[in-house]
Amino acid sequence: MASVSLSCPLPFASTDRILLGHGSGGKMTAELLARCFLPAFRNEYLDRRDDQAVVTVGAARLAFTTDSYVVTPLFFPGGDIGALAVNGTVNDLAAGGTRPLYLSAAFILEEGFAVSDLERIVASMRAAAEAAGVFLVTGDTKVVDRGKADGCFITTTGIGLVEHTLDVLATGADVHCLRDPTRGGVATALNELAQQSSIGIVLDERAIAINEPVRGVCELLGLDPLYVANEGKMLAIVAGADAEQVLATMRRHPESREARVVGEVVEDPARLVVLKTSVGGRRIVDMLQGEQLPRIC
Amino acid sequence: MASVSLSCPLPFASTDRILLGHGSGGKMTAELLARCFLPAFRNEYLDRRDDQAVVTVGAARLAFTTDSYVVTPLFFPGGDIGALAVNGTVNDLAAGGTRPLYLSAAFILEEGFAVSDLERIVASMRAAAEAAGVFLVTGDTKVVDRGKADGCFITTTGIGLVEHTLDVLATGADVHCLRDPTRGGVATALNELAQQSSIGIVLDERAIAINEPVRGVCELLGLDPLYVANEGKMLAIVAGADAEQVLATMRRHPESREARVVGEVVEDPARLVVLKTSVGGRRIVDMLQGEQLPRIC
Repeated sequence: MASVSLSCPLPFASTDRILLGHGSGGKMTAELLARCFLPAFRNEYLDRRDDQAVVTVGAARLAFTTDSYVVTPLFFPGGDIGALAVNGTVNDLAAGGTRPLYLSAAFILEEGFAVSDLERIVASMRAAAEAAGVFLVTGDTKVVDRGKADGCFITTTGIGLVEHTLDVLATGADVHCLRDPTRGGVATALNELAQQSSIGIVLDERAIAINEPVRGVCELLGLDPLYVANEGKMLAIVAGADAEQVLATMRRHPESREARVVGEVVEDPARLVVLKTSVGGRRIVDMLQGEQLPRIC
Repeated sequence: MASVSLSCPLPFASTDRILLGHGSGGKMTAELLARCFLPAFRNEYLDRRDDQAVVTVGAARLAFTTDSYVVTPLFFPGGDIGALAVNGTVNDLAAGGTRPLYLSAAFILEEGFAVSDLERIVASMRAAAEAAGVFLVTGDTKVVDRGKADGCFITTTGIGLVEHTLDVLATGADVHCLRDPTRGGVATALNELAQQSSIGIVLDERAIAINEPVRGVCELLGLDPLYVANEGKMLAIVAGADAEQVLATMRRHPESREARVVGEVVEDPARLVVLKTSVGGRRIVDMLQGEQLPRIC
C-alpha cells in the first residue's frame, strides 16, 4: 500500500540553528547572548557585558578576558593567527585600562596539521607576547580527527592588573569608557554603548579616518568600513571639555597620531547611533546584521 | 619532449604532521610540548609543567589553568560537554590546593548547530558552576562554517586563589604533590611525576580500585584501565609516615571513601613506574603511547 503524505510539517526555523552571523559580534551575537548565555549565567560581572570581567582575588583587582581565534587563512600579509591571538587578548585588557600580565593558550588542532606551521604560529605568539611584555604561563593542546576542525583554532585568555596606567587615563580627564571596535566594527561597538548606557551617539562621517587602501578594498568588495573589524583601534568616550586634552595625549604616541573626535554623545535620540553623512544627510547606523566578513578575527 | 622523474623525494615523516596522539596527554603530547611549545615560551611558570600556573598579581597568588573540551559525543550518560568543561577546569584548580573562583568560557560553534543543544550545554555549565561555587564571568562565541568544526568546542579557563584549604593539606601532613590523572590516566600522570622528580614509583596492582563496570568495559574494548582518563580522581604523593593520616582525612569525604595507598616512591629505578602485578610479577608501566580513546575529555 503506497501512501503519499500531503502535509509534512517540519518545524525548522533558521533561528533554531547556529548561523555564521551568531559569531559576528553584531546583532545576532547580541541576540544569542541575550537568549542563551546571559540568562543562564546571570551575575554582576557578566551583566556588565564588557569585553573583560573585573574580578577581585584576594587583595588584587584583576581583569580577565577570553577570545577564540578561528581565522582563515591562518597566515596573511602582516600577521598570522598566533600574533592575532596574543595581540587581540592583550588589546582587550589594555582597552579596559589594565596592565596585561599573563596569558593562557589552548590549541585545537586538526589531525594532519603541519607541525612546521604550528612552529611558525608559536614563534609569532612568542614574539607578540615579548613585545607586549606578557608571559604565556599555561596551555592545552587537543587534536581532533581530520575534517572536524580547520587546521588550528587558538583560545587565549588574559589576566591583567587593573591599575589605570594608560596615558589617557593619567591625564585626569573624565574618561567614561574605552572600547576596542573589533568584530562588528565601530558601528557595532557604538551601538552597544548607546544601548547599555541609554545614550544617543551622533557620528560625523567626514571626521572618521579611513585610510585609502581600506576605503578602496571596501568599495571593491561592497563592505561598509563602519562594520569592518579592527585590531589596534580604540574608541574613547570622554567629557567634551576634556576631549582636546585627551586627543593631544593620544597624538603623542606614533600609533595614534591620527586620533580625532569623530562624534558626540547626545541625550536624544537615546539608544541610537546616527551618522551625519559627508553630503549633509543623516542616517541611522544599526548594529551589524549577520556576518559581513566571516572568520577574520 | 616528455620526461620521467625517476626519483621524486617527498620529505614526509609522520612526525611532521599533527596526529591524534599529540592530543592524548601522553608521550606524544609530551614530545610536542618539548619540541614546540616549551622552547618558544620558556619561562619559570611554564617550566614547572603543572596543570595550572601559579602567578602573582598585585598582592594575590593565583592559580590559572585552561583546557579545551572537544569531546564526542557531546551528550553522554551521566553528563555532557558543558558539565565536563566546568568540572574539568575546576578540578585542575582544586588539585593544586586552590580555591576556584572565576571561569571564562569560549565557544567555537559549527554553523547549523542546534540552539536547543547549546541551551542544554549552557544549562549544564550553569549547574556545574553553581555546584562548584564559581562564577562564569566572561566569554566568547565564534561560529565556523559547516564542516570546519564538530558541533561545539568549549575552552574554559579558571582563576583560583592559592590558599591550600584542602582538608588533606590542613592536616599538616607532608604532602609532596597532588595530581588529577585525566588524559593518559594514572599511568601517564605517575610517569610525568617520576620523570620530573627523578624518582621511581612502584604500584601495587591489587591495591588499585577499579570498579566492576569500568573493569568490564575495559576488558570488552581491550583498554588498559591504567591509561583511561579520569574525572574527579586524585593522586597524592605524601610522606610514608603521614599516609595513614591523609587516608583517614580523605575517607571522611563521601567522594573519597575508597581512597587507598596504591604504591610507593623509591629511589631506584629512578624515572620509571613499575607495577607489581596481582600474580606476583613486575612490569614497567610506560606513558600512554598514541591515543587509546580519542576525544573523551
